[in-house]
Amino acid sequence: METKETTIRKVYVFRGRILTVRNDDALMPNGDVRSREVVEHPGGVCVLPVQNDGTILLVEQFRYPYMEDVLEAPAGKLERGEDPLSAGKRELREETGMVATEYFDLGVDYPSPGYTDEVIHLYAARGLTEVGQDLDDDEFLNVKRLSFSAALEMIYNNEIKDSKTAMAILKYKDLLNLGKLDGKKL
Amino acid sequence: METKETTIRKVYVFRGRILTVRNDDALMPNGDVRSREVVEHPGGVCVLPVQNDGTILLVEQFRYPYMEDVLEAPAGKLERGEDPLSAGKRELREETGMVATEYFDLGVDYPSPGYTDEVIHLYAARGLTEVGQDLDDDEFLNVKRLSFSAALEMIYNNEIKDSKTAMAILKYKDLLNLGKLDGKKL
Repeated sequence: METKETTIRKVYVFRGRILTVRNDDALMPNGDVRSREVVEHPGGVCVLPVQNDGTILLVEQFRYPYMEDVLEAPAGKLERGEDPLSAGKRELREETGMVATEYFDLGVDYPSPGYTDEVIHLYAARGLTEVGQDLDDDEFLNVKRLSFSAALEMIYNNEIKDSKTAMAILKYKDLLNLGKLDGKKL
Repeated sequence: METKETTIRKVYVFRGRILTVRNDDALMPNGDVRSREVVEHPGGVCVLPVQNDGTILLVEQFRYPYMEDVLEAPAGKLERGEDPLSAGKRELREETGMVATEYFDLGVDYPSPGYTDEVIHLYAARGLTEVGQDLDDDEFLNVKRLSFSAALEMIYNNEIKDSKTAMAILKYKDLLNLGKLDGKKL
Protein backbone atom coordinates (compact mmCIF):
# COMPACT_ATOMS: atom_id res chain seq x y z
CA MET A 1 0.00 0.00 0.00
CA GLU A 2 1.23 3.52 -0.81
CA THR A 3 1.80 5.34 2.49
CA LYS A 4 3.44 8.68 1.66
CA GLU A 5 1.75 11.90 2.83
CA THR A 6 2.76 15.33 1.59
CA THR A 7 2.39 18.77 3.13
CA ILE A 8 -0.08 21.11 1.44
CA ARG A 9 0.17 23.88 4.01
CA LYS A 10 2.17 24.30 7.21
CA VAL A 11 0.06 26.05 9.85
CA TYR A 12 1.86 27.23 12.98
CA VAL A 13 -0.48 27.39 15.97
CA PHE A 14 1.97 27.83 18.88
CA ARG A 15 5.59 28.91 19.21
CA GLY A 16 6.83 28.32 22.75
CA ARG A 17 10.18 28.41 24.48
CA ILE A 18 10.75 24.69 23.75
CA LEU A 19 7.90 23.40 21.58
CA THR A 20 6.51 24.62 18.28
CA VAL A 21 3.10 23.22 17.33
CA ARG A 22 1.64 22.95 13.81
CA ASN A 23 -1.75 21.91 12.51
CA ASP A 24 -0.94 21.22 8.87
CA ASP A 25 -3.08 20.32 5.89
CA ALA A 26 -1.64 17.14 4.41
CA LEU A 27 -2.41 15.15 1.27
CA MET A 28 -3.10 11.47 1.96
CA PRO A 29 -2.04 8.66 -0.39
CA ASN A 30 -5.68 8.32 -1.56
CA GLY A 31 -5.97 12.01 -2.48
CA ASP A 32 -7.90 13.12 0.62
CA VAL A 33 -6.77 16.16 2.59
CA ARG A 34 -6.43 15.69 6.37
CA SER A 35 -5.16 17.79 9.25
CA ARG A 36 -1.94 16.61 10.88
CA GLU A 37 -1.02 17.92 14.33
CA VAL A 38 2.75 18.07 14.82
CA VAL A 39 4.91 18.99 17.80
CA GLU A 40 8.30 20.28 16.67
CA HIS A 41 10.99 19.56 19.25
CA PRO A 42 14.71 20.43 19.12
CA GLY A 43 15.71 16.80 19.85
CA GLY A 44 16.95 15.15 22.99
CA VAL A 45 19.77 13.14 24.43
CA CYS A 46 19.90 10.48 27.14
CA VAL A 47 23.02 9.01 28.76
CA LEU A 48 23.05 5.85 30.88
CA PRO A 49 25.98 6.16 33.33
CA VAL A 50 27.38 2.72 34.27
CA GLN A 51 29.94 2.62 37.08
CA ASN A 52 32.86 0.18 37.29
CA ASP A 53 30.95 -2.01 39.76
CA GLY A 54 27.98 -2.23 37.35
CA THR A 55 25.72 0.12 39.29
CA ILE A 56 23.93 2.81 37.31
CA LEU A 57 22.96 6.38 38.08
CA LEU A 58 19.42 7.59 37.47
CA VAL A 59 17.78 10.89 38.34
CA GLU A 60 14.39 11.32 39.93
CA GLN A 61 12.64 14.55 39.03
CA PHE A 62 9.16 16.00 39.09
CA ARG A 63 7.65 15.85 35.63
CA TYR A 64 5.05 18.54 35.32
CA PRO A 65 2.90 16.88 32.60
CA TYR A 66 2.35 13.82 34.85
CA MET A 67 2.45 15.75 38.15
CA GLU A 68 4.66 13.04 39.61
CA ASP A 69 8.31 12.14 40.18
CA VAL A 70 9.75 10.11 37.31
CA LEU A 71 12.93 8.04 37.43
CA GLU A 72 15.06 8.56 34.32
CA ALA A 73 18.57 8.33 33.00
CA PRO A 74 20.24 11.76 32.79
CA ALA A 75 18.78 13.55 29.77
CA GLY A 76 18.00 16.87 28.22
CA LYS A 77 17.22 18.86 25.12
CA LEU A 78 19.69 19.68 22.37
CA GLU A 79 20.69 23.31 22.15
CA ARG A 80 20.40 24.75 18.64
CA GLY A 81 23.04 23.17 16.40
CA GLU A 82 24.49 21.14 19.28
CA ASP A 83 26.09 17.77 18.56
CA PRO A 84 24.10 15.04 20.41
CA LEU A 85 27.15 13.47 22.11
CA SER A 86 28.35 16.87 23.36
CA ALA A 87 24.86 17.51 24.70
CA GLY A 88 24.93 14.11 26.41
CA LYS A 89 28.24 14.92 28.09
CA ARG A 90 26.85 18.28 29.21
CA GLU A 91 23.67 16.76 30.66
CA LEU A 92 25.57 13.95 32.40
CA ARG A 93 27.86 16.52 34.02
CA GLU A 94 25.07 18.94 34.96
CA GLU A 95 22.67 16.37 36.41
CA THR A 96 24.98 13.81 38.06
CA GLY A 97 28.29 15.66 38.36
CA MET A 98 30.07 12.93 36.41
CA VAL A 99 32.44 12.93 33.47
CA ALA A 100 33.19 9.72 31.55
CA THR A 101 36.11 8.32 29.57
CA GLU A 102 34.06 5.94 27.36
CA TYR A 103 30.83 6.49 25.44
CA PHE A 104 28.74 3.92 23.55
CA ASP A 105 26.15 4.67 20.87
CA LEU A 106 22.81 3.03 21.75
CA GLY A 107 20.95 4.41 18.74
CA VAL A 108 17.96 6.73 18.67
CA ASP A 109 14.49 6.67 20.17
CA TYR A 110 11.38 7.97 18.40
CA PRO A 111 9.22 8.60 21.46
CA SER A 112 5.77 8.97 19.89
CA PRO A 113 5.87 9.10 16.08
CA GLY A 114 2.19 9.95 15.62
CA TYR A 115 2.63 13.59 16.64
CA THR A 116 6.17 14.55 17.68
CA ASP A 117 9.30 14.89 15.56
CA GLU A 118 11.57 14.51 18.60
CA VAL A 119 14.62 12.28 18.13
CA ILE A 120 16.29 11.19 21.38
CA HIS A 121 19.92 10.07 21.03
CA LEU A 122 20.83 7.29 23.47
CA TYR A 123 24.29 6.66 24.91
CA ALA A 124 25.93 4.70 27.68
CA ALA A 125 28.86 6.20 29.59
CA ARG A 126 31.59 4.34 31.47
CA GLY A 127 34.82 5.28 33.20
CA LEU A 128 33.04 7.78 35.42
CA THR A 129 34.69 10.38 37.65
CA GLU A 130 32.84 12.80 39.91
CA VAL A 131 33.56 16.47 39.25
CA GLY A 132 30.44 18.12 40.74
CA GLN A 133 26.80 18.72 39.77
CA ASP A 134 25.80 21.90 37.92
CA LEU A 135 22.01 22.08 37.59
CA ASP A 136 20.03 24.53 35.46
CA ASP A 137 18.17 27.04 37.63
CA ASP A 138 14.82 25.35 36.87
CA GLU A 139 16.09 21.81 37.48
CA PHE A 140 15.34 20.06 40.78
CA LEU A 141 16.32 16.42 40.95
CA ASN A 142 17.77 13.66 43.10
CA VAL A 143 20.45 11.26 41.86
CA LYS A 144 19.77 7.57 42.61
CA ARG A 145 22.36 4.80 42.49
CA LEU A 146 20.94 1.36 41.60
CA SER A 147 22.43 -2.05 40.90
CA PHE A 148 21.90 -3.06 37.29
CA SER A 149 19.71 -5.98 38.35
CA ALA A 150 17.55 -3.71 40.52
CA ALA A 151 17.04 -1.38 37.55
CA LEU A 152 16.01 -4.34 35.37
CA GLU A 153 13.53 -5.50 38.02
CA MET A 154 12.07 -1.99 38.08
CA ILE A 155 11.56 -2.15 34.31
CA TYR A 156 9.92 -5.59 34.48
CA ASN A 157 7.69 -4.44 37.39
CA ASN A 158 6.75 -1.23 35.58
CA GLU A 159 8.40 1.06 38.13
CA ILE A 160 10.65 2.50 35.40
CA LYS A 161 8.22 3.80 32.80
CA ASP A 162 10.28 6.37 30.91
CA SER A 163 10.85 4.96 27.43
CA LYS A 164 14.35 6.34 26.76
CA THR A 165 15.56 4.99 30.10
CA ALA A 166 14.05 1.53 29.59
CA MET A 167 15.38 1.37 26.02
CA ALA A 168 18.88 2.42 27.07
CA ILE A 169 19.07 -0.08 29.96
CA LEU A 170 17.62 -3.02 27.98
CA LYS A 171 19.73 -2.35 24.87
CA TYR A 172 22.90 -1.84 26.89
CA LYS A 173 22.36 -5.15 28.72
CA ASP A 174 21.71 -7.16 25.55
CA LEU A 175 24.57 -5.58 23.57
CA LEU A 176 26.95 -6.27 26.47
CA ASN A 177 25.76 -9.88 26.86
CA LEU A 178 25.98 -10.49 23.11
CA GLY A 179 29.52 -9.08 22.95
CA LYS A 180 28.31 -6.31 20.64
CA LEU A 181 28.86 -3.33 22.92
CA ASP A 182 32.48 -2.73 21.92
CA GLY A 183 31.30 -2.28 18.32
CA LYS A 184 29.22 0.68 19.55
CA LYS A 185 32.14 2.44 21.25
CA LEU A 186 32.59 6.06 20.22
CA MET B 1 16.06 17.99 47.16
CA GLU B 2 12.41 19.09 47.02
CA THR B 3 11.18 18.56 43.45
CA LYS B 4 7.42 19.27 43.46
CA GLU B 5 6.07 21.93 41.10
CA THR B 6 2.54 23.32 41.36
CA THR B 7 0.27 24.93 38.78
CA ILE B 8 -0.40 28.64 39.25
CA ARG B 9 -2.33 29.09 36.02
CA LYS B 10 -3.33 26.72 33.20
CA VAL B 11 -3.05 28.50 29.87
CA TYR B 12 -4.55 26.71 26.86
CA VAL B 13 -2.82 27.73 23.64
CA PHE B 14 -4.12 25.12 21.15
CA ARG B 15 -7.04 22.71 21.10
CA GLY B 16 -6.74 20.32 18.17
CA ARG B 17 -8.49 17.16 17.04
CA ILE B 18 -5.99 15.00 18.98
CA LEU B 19 -3.64 17.25 20.95
CA THR B 20 -4.33 20.02 23.44
CA VAL B 21 -1.38 22.29 24.23
CA ARG B 22 -0.88 24.39 27.35
CA ASN B 23 1.72 26.95 28.35
CA ASP B 24 1.22 27.08 32.12
CA ASP B 25 2.69 29.23 34.84
CA ALA B 26 4.14 26.89 37.44
CA LEU B 27 5.66 27.43 40.87
CA MET B 28 9.08 25.83 41.25
CA PRO B 29 10.31 24.26 44.52
CA ASN B 30 12.53 27.32 45.13
CA GLY B 31 9.62 29.77 44.80
CA ASP B 32 10.37 30.91 41.23
CA VAL B 33 7.63 31.01 38.62
CA ARG B 34 8.41 29.31 35.28
CA SER B 35 6.46 28.52 32.15
CA ARG B 36 5.77 24.83 31.52
CA GLU B 37 4.75 23.72 28.02
CA VAL B 38 2.52 20.65 28.10
CA VAL B 39 1.00 18.49 25.37
CA GLU B 40 -2.19 16.82 26.60
CA HIS B 41 -2.77 13.51 24.84
CA PRO B 42 -5.67 11.05 25.30
CA GLY B 43 -3.26 8.15 25.88
CA GLY B 44 -2.17 5.32 23.66
CA VAL B 45 -1.99 1.58 23.37
CA CYS B 46 0.48 -0.75 21.69
CA VAL B 47 0.08 -4.49 21.13
CA LEU B 48 2.90 -6.84 20.14
CA PRO B 49 1.34 -9.76 18.23
CA VAL B 50 3.40 -12.95 18.64
CA GLN B 51 2.42 -15.89 16.45
CA ASN B 52 2.68 -19.56 17.50
CA ASP B 53 5.93 -19.96 15.54
CA GLY B 54 7.46 -16.97 17.40
CA THR B 55 7.25 -14.56 14.47
CA ILE B 56 5.83 -11.11 15.22
CA LEU B 57 3.70 -8.72 13.21
CA LEU B 58 4.72 -5.09 12.84
CA VAL B 59 3.20 -2.33 10.74
CA GLU B 60 5.11 0.09 8.56
CA GLN B 61 3.42 3.44 8.12
CA PHE B 62 4.32 6.94 7.06
CA ARG B 63 4.77 9.14 10.10
CA TYR B 64 4.10 12.72 9.14
CA PRO B 65 6.24 14.41 11.86
CA TYR B 66 9.35 12.54 10.60
CA MET B 67 8.30 12.45 6.94
CA GLU B 68 9.40 8.82 6.75
CA ASP B 69 8.06 5.27 7.09
CA VAL B 70 8.38 3.95 10.64
CA LEU B 71 8.16 0.29 11.69
CA GLU B 72 6.01 -0.14 14.79
CA ALA B 73 3.91 -2.64 16.66
CA PRO B 74 0.17 -2.10 16.07
CA ALA B 75 -0.88 0.92 18.11
CA GLY B 76 -3.30 3.77 18.40
CA LYS B 77 -4.92 6.38 20.56
CA LEU B 78 -7.47 5.70 23.27
CA GLU B 79 -10.97 6.90 22.53
CA ARG B 80 -12.50 8.97 25.31
CA GLY B 81 -13.15 6.73 28.32
CA GLU B 82 -11.93 3.64 26.50
CA ASP B 83 -10.32 0.82 28.48
CA PRO B 84 -6.69 0.38 27.27
CA LEU B 85 -6.95 -3.38 26.65
CA SER B 86 -10.16 -2.94 24.63
CA ALA B 87 -8.39 -0.24 22.62
CA GLY B 88 -5.48 -2.63 22.08
CA LYS B 89 -7.78 -5.35 20.77
CA ARG B 90 -9.44 -2.83 18.47
CA GLU B 91 -6.13 -1.54 17.08
CA LEU B 92 -4.75 -5.07 16.62
CA ARG B 93 -7.87 -6.06 14.68
CA GLU B 94 -8.01 -2.86 12.60
CA GLU B 95 -4.33 -2.76 11.65
CA THR B 96 -3.38 -6.43 11.26
CA GLY B 97 -6.75 -8.18 10.93
CA MET B 98 -5.93 -10.41 13.91
CA VAL B 99 -7.81 -11.39 17.06
CA ALA B 100 -5.99 -13.06 19.96
CA THR B 101 -6.92 -15.50 22.73
CA GLU B 102 -4.18 -14.42 25.19
CA TYR B 103 -3.03 -10.97 26.30
CA PHE B 104 -0.08 -10.08 28.53
CA ASP B 105 0.41 -6.79 30.39
CA LEU B 106 3.82 -5.29 29.53
CA GLY B 107 3.32 -2.14 31.61
CA VAL B 108 3.22 1.46 30.48
CA ASP B 109 5.55 3.72 28.52
CA TYR B 110 6.05 7.42 29.30
CA PRO B 111 7.31 8.50 25.87
CA SER B 112 8.79 11.93 26.67
CA PRO B 113 8.01 13.10 30.23
CA GLY B 114 9.43 16.61 29.79
CA TYR B 115 6.43 17.84 27.79
CA THR B 116 3.77 15.21 27.07
CA ASP B 117 1.32 13.55 29.47
CA GLU B 118 0.78 10.61 27.11
CA VAL B 119 0.69 7.17 28.73
CA ILE B 120 1.11 4.27 26.30
CA HIS B 121 -0.20 0.92 27.55
CA LEU B 122 1.88 -2.01 26.27
CA TYR B 123 0.57 -5.53 25.69
CA ALA B 124 1.62 -8.73 23.97
CA ALA B 125 -0.99 -10.86 22.18
CA ARG B 126 -0.81 -14.58 21.45
CA GLY B 127 -3.16 -17.20 20.05
CA LEU B 128 -3.75 -15.16 16.91
CA THR B 129 -6.43 -15.81 14.29
CA GLU B 130 -6.88 -13.77 11.11
CA VAL B 131 -10.33 -12.22 10.70
CA GLY B 132 -9.58 -9.33 8.29
CA GLN B 133 -8.06 -5.85 8.43
CA ASP B 134 -10.31 -2.81 9.01
CA LEU B 135 -8.28 0.40 8.65
CA ASP B 136 -9.41 3.91 9.55
CA ASP B 137 -9.96 6.02 6.46
CA ASP B 138 -6.79 8.03 7.15
CA GLU B 139 -4.61 4.99 7.88
CA PHE B 140 -2.25 3.65 5.23
CA LEU B 141 0.09 0.90 6.35
CA ASN B 142 1.79 -2.35 5.43
CA VAL B 143 1.91 -5.35 7.74
CA LYS B 144 5.36 -6.96 8.08
CA ARG B 145 6.02 -10.43 9.46
CA LEU B 146 9.44 -10.83 11.15
CA SER B 147 11.15 -13.57 13.11
CA PHE B 148 11.68 -12.56 16.72
CA SER B 149 15.45 -12.69 16.28
CA ALA B 150 15.27 -10.46 13.19
CA ALA B 151 13.25 -7.90 15.16
CA LEU B 152 15.84 -7.97 17.97
CA GLU B 153 18.64 -7.44 15.44
CA MET B 154 16.73 -4.45 14.06
CA ILE B 155 16.55 -2.96 17.57
CA TYR B 156 20.27 -3.52 18.20
CA ASN B 157 21.14 -2.06 14.76
CA ASN B 158 18.86 0.95 15.31
CA GLU B 159 16.48 0.03 12.47
CA ILE B 160 13.58 -0.15 14.93
CA LYS B 161 13.53 3.28 16.58
CA ASP B 162 9.99 3.56 17.88
CA SER B 163 10.21 3.44 21.67
CA LYS B 164 6.95 1.63 22.46
CA THR B 165 7.85 -1.10 19.92
CA ALA B 166 11.40 -1.55 21.24
CA MET B 167 10.19 -1.58 24.85
CA ALA B 168 7.45 -4.12 24.10
CA ILE B 169 9.80 -6.48 22.21
CA LEU B 170 12.66 -6.27 24.74
CA LYS B 171 10.39 -6.63 27.79
CA TYR B 172 8.44 -9.52 26.24
CA LYS B 173 11.68 -11.38 25.48
CA ASP B 174 13.15 -10.92 28.96
CA LEU B 175 9.91 -11.74 30.79
CA LEU B 176 9.52 -14.90 28.67
CA ASN B 177 13.14 -15.96 29.23
CA LEU B 178 12.89 -15.31 32.98
CA GLY B 179 9.67 -17.33 33.27
CA LYS B 180 7.81 -14.18 34.36
CA LEU B 181 5.50 -13.77 31.38
CA ASP B 182 2.72 -16.01 32.73
CA GLY B 183 2.48 -13.74 35.76
CA LYS B 184 1.56 -10.91 33.36
CA LYS B 185 -1.28 -12.83 31.69
CA LEU B 186 -4.59 -10.97 31.63
